[in-house]
Amino acid sequence: MVDQRFFQKSNEVALKQIIKHCKISLPKGANKNLLFSDISSLDKAKSNHISFLDNTLYIEKFKKSKAGACFLRKQFLNITPKNMIPLVTENPYHAFAITAHIFYSSKNISQGIHTKSHIEGNAQYDKSVQIDPGAVISSDVEIDTNCKIGANTVILSGVKIGKNTLIGSNCSIGYSILGSNIKIHNGVKIGQDGFGFAENIKGYLKMPQLGRVIIEDNVEIGANTTIDRGTNPDTIIGRGSKLDNLVQIGHNVVIGKNCIIVSQTGISGSTVFGNNVIVGGQVGIAGHLKIGNNVKIAAKSGVMKNIENNGIVGGIPAIPIKNWHRQTIILKNLLKK
Amino acid sequence: MVDQRFFQKSNEVALKQIIKHCKISLPKGANKNLLFSDISSLDKAKSNHISFLDNTLYIEKFKKSKAGACFLRKQFLNITPKNMIPLVTENPYHAFAITAHIFYSSKNISQGIHTKSHIEGNAQYDKSVQIDPGAVISSDVEIDTNCKIGANTVILSGVKIGKNTLIGSNCSIGYSILGSNIKIHNGVKIGQDGFGFAENIKGYLKMPQLGRVIIEDNVEIGANTTIDRGTNPDTIIGRGSKLDNLVQIGHNVVIGKNCIIVSQTGISGSTVFGNNVIVGGQVGIAGHLKIGNNVKIAAKSGVMKNIENNGIVGGIPAIPIKNWHRQTIILKNLLKK
Amino acid sequence: MVDQRFFQKSNEVALKQIIKHCKISLPKGANKNLLFSDISSLDKAKSNHISFLDNTLYIEKFKKSKAGACFLRKQFLNITPKNMIPLVTENPYHAFAITAHIFYSSKNISQGIHTKSHIEGNAQYDKSVQIDPGAVISSDVEIDTNCKIGANTVILSGVKIGKNTLIGSNCSIGYSILGSNIKIHNGVKIGQDGFGFAENIKGYLKMPQLGRVIIEDNVEIGANTTIDRGTNPDTIIGRGSKLDNLVQIGHNVVIGKNCIIVSQTGISGSTVFGNNVIVGGQVGIAGHLKIGNNVKIAAKSGVMKNIENNGIVGGIPAIPIKNWHRQTIILKNLLKK
Repeated sequence: MVDQRFFQKSNEVALKQIIKHCKISLPKGANKNLLFSDISSLDKAKSNHISFLDNTLYIEKFKKSKAGACFLRKQFLNITPKNMIPLVTENPYHAFAITAHIFYSSKNISQGIHTKSHIEGNAQYDKSVQIDPGAVISSDVEIDTNCKIGANTVILSGVKIGKNTLIGSNCSIGYSILGSNIKIHNGVKIGQDGFGFAENIKGYLKMPQLGRVIIEDNVEIGANTTIDRGTNPDTIIGRGSKLDNLVQIGHNVVIGKNCIIVSQTGISGSTVFGNNVIVGGQVGIAGHLKIGNNVKIAAKSGVMKNIENNGIVGGIPAIPIKNWHRQTIILKNLLKK
Repeated sequence: MVDQRFFQKSNEVALKQIIKHCKISLPKGANKNLLFSDISSLDKAKSNHISFLDNTLYIEKFKKSKAGACFLRKQFLNITPKNMIPLVTENPYHAFAITAHIFYSSKNISQGIHTKSHIEGNAQYDKSVQIDPGAVISSDVEIDTNCKIGANTVILSGVKIGKNTLIGSNCSIGYSILGSNIKIHNGVKIGQDGFGFAENIKGYLKMPQLGRVIIEDNVEIGANTTIDRGTNPDTIIGRGSKLDNLVQIGHNVVIGKNCIIVSQTGISGSTVFGNNVIVGGQVGIAGHLKIGNNVKIAAKSGVMKNIENNGIVGGIPAIPIKNWHRQTIILKNLLKK
Repeated sequence: MVDQRFFQKSNEVALKQIIKHCKISLPKGANKNLLFSDISSLDKAKSNHISFLDNTLYIEKFKKSKAGACFLRKQFLNITPKNMIPLVTENPYHAFAITAHIFYSSKNISQGIHTKSHIEGNAQYDKSVQIDPGAVISSDVEIDTNCKIGANTVILSGVKIGKNTLIGSNCSIGYSILGSNIKIHNGVKIGQDGFGFAENIKGYLKMPQLGRVIIEDNVEIGANTTIDRGTNPDTIIGRGSKLDNLVQIGHNVVIGKNCIIVSQTGISGSTVFGNNVIVGGQVGIAGHLKIGNNVKIAAKSGVMKNIENNGIVGGIPAIPIKNWHRQTIILKNLLKK
């Protein structure tokens, strides 16, 4: 049960609506008008709940589950409990996520422009936009339809924001072009000038940072993450990539499409990612490197060299993951002596 | 001497008041009405100052100290300088901390609700509450007695806050139930939805995060730390636990009671702590682990397995601390060859 | 080409002005009144652009470059392309940075005190100061000439700020004395009380933190970095030092002059740095250590001991960098067996 202080559930939803959204067919003999009232985990589900089986670790819970319907892969059909409707799909967790969005859709009723926000005269925004108290929208900003700017967030001069982009509270965003359907969590700082200095005997002189930050569509950026703008060219976060909390992205970094970057990872200046890269938490990646497509980097690694497409690495300095595991075993064996 | 721009010292305090608060007895022959004017370190103390000896490294300074009184353990009684009153306690540093609070008590005079804050009509708060300029209190928020909400902090809909809880400036707190006597430092972000996605060939779909964050009594949370809300159930920070700055707590994490988590540590989703766990700085802990009671984890460790009660570990991956130290020595010896 | 949404370029600049600022002499036969319109990299430069050659990796690009003038070291004079004016200097990158500042000077026109800021009656500030919407200036704050306080930033009671200091948006600064020509990026939190507790069987009691934060002239502090105030004495960031994003500075830390601290590094309480220390990203440094002058610490190191002047270290625990590299090789060789 969710806490109704915070979440609002839809009324009952018919099976036909669920299978339509999930693009799966009606199971033989199932009543397409059957109503479900909630989603639930296998062990807590009631007969009017929908659940999912995605991991073989949960097969015993599945066999005992009272869920009225369950997303599962074909091979588990024959062990489905008697009173459960099996909803066959190749991606049960994804179908469950879609269903969760049906029951718990985000409220999207705009509360309009709050009188305690501040918007410069020449900023442009669609009338569907919500701007919360204390938000500051500077000159020449452009905000497209259905965006939300959270309380006490600051959008600096010239920033462009695409459709359906949601920005949390206490963010600062400057020198950036944001696409559509982006979610930026509370406290994110984007577009500040990067860490580039010219040294002489007197000390350090800042190199002017004359690039921007480009955030492509469908990106999500976690709380208190920082993304520096480019020196010129730009820092780029590719379409569909997801960054966790407290991540650091240096100037001129290019992140490809559909990459995952877990919390507290730092990527140094001018490093370029391919697509579908997955980076664990607290990884550090040196500057000016090329990280190929589909690369996976274990948590806490320190990457000091380029990584080829499909590479899987771990350790400090990072090496192929198999070698890193073997190294751990070798060290363990040395301890035994 | 403290800077009076920032700190206000009480007037003189009588010895009887100090020993009463510290629950220690009046030393033989000491005048209970003797007045002290300040606390101080052993080497800087004057005759009307109170100091403490907690670490044998400071014995020489103790012998030369001019402090008028000093908290110390029984065994140092016989080396107490002539003009110093020995205040015997098993925990000199703790008694000194209590005394420091007597001399430098926080000002708790509420300045009320600032006209430049914004409070939604149906939010409830006790009249003793202080709400600073730019703070935003959203609908259905409830705030109990003697709380303080710092400037430009945003409290999102439905959040409950217990008694005497102090929240700094530029925080964002949503989807949370906060207990009493909590201290939340500037820039903390609590309750944003966690890093959970369902993948398919098109990319990543956010799994709705339908849980909350529960912060129990007497917790302290450091500046710019981030705590994601649960998927359902909740993320929980147990009573009396202290989190340093820039810590990351993933969704569904449960921290036990009286745990210490030092700066820049990250704890991945669904990991569960026992009580009295101490975690050094920059530690990474993988998801779905169990960390027992009284566990200690050395700074910079990478924890990839469950840890039993009372375990002490270090290294990446983390191993028993003795083995980690031996490993360091083995590597050193290999270098010599 | 820079994006004119965000950056404003000066009109054309004469060669004589550039060489004057960079303190270099007019090359033989060059027309001191020749006008340049922009800076550029070697490969993108046009005949009215100025570029630089600092790294021998770029010699081929240099030979083909169409730049009208180029900063370079003496030894490359003889390979200068025919139509390029060589501007000889020992520090081409530094001269280029100076030139970049000529073309892209920061706008310094104060927009004054915004009506949606809040300034306590007894705060003092020069009339040249800019205070943006939502900024909160508390009692007894003093702000010197030509400072800028960004939107929704909170300056707590008693803070002093020197000349030409720029503070971004959504910062919180308390218990601090700031010098001149400082740049503080968005989201920085300075002066909160540090992570110091006295433990007893009931739990942890906060030790009052009675010191300040002193930031000397010409310091730069990156986005979302946190600096705790001293216990008494102070936390100090020395003149000319540069801190990157998401850095953690514990209470009583002293950073010397002209130090560089890269992103996500954490320095524990009471550690003292000399001058000209360079610390890579994600380094952790234990408390109560002495780090000598000119020390260099590789990214991701864990420093557990004092480091002598001029030391260069790496690894966890950190050891002399040569030994760390050898250790990496030894482990690689063990893998081959």
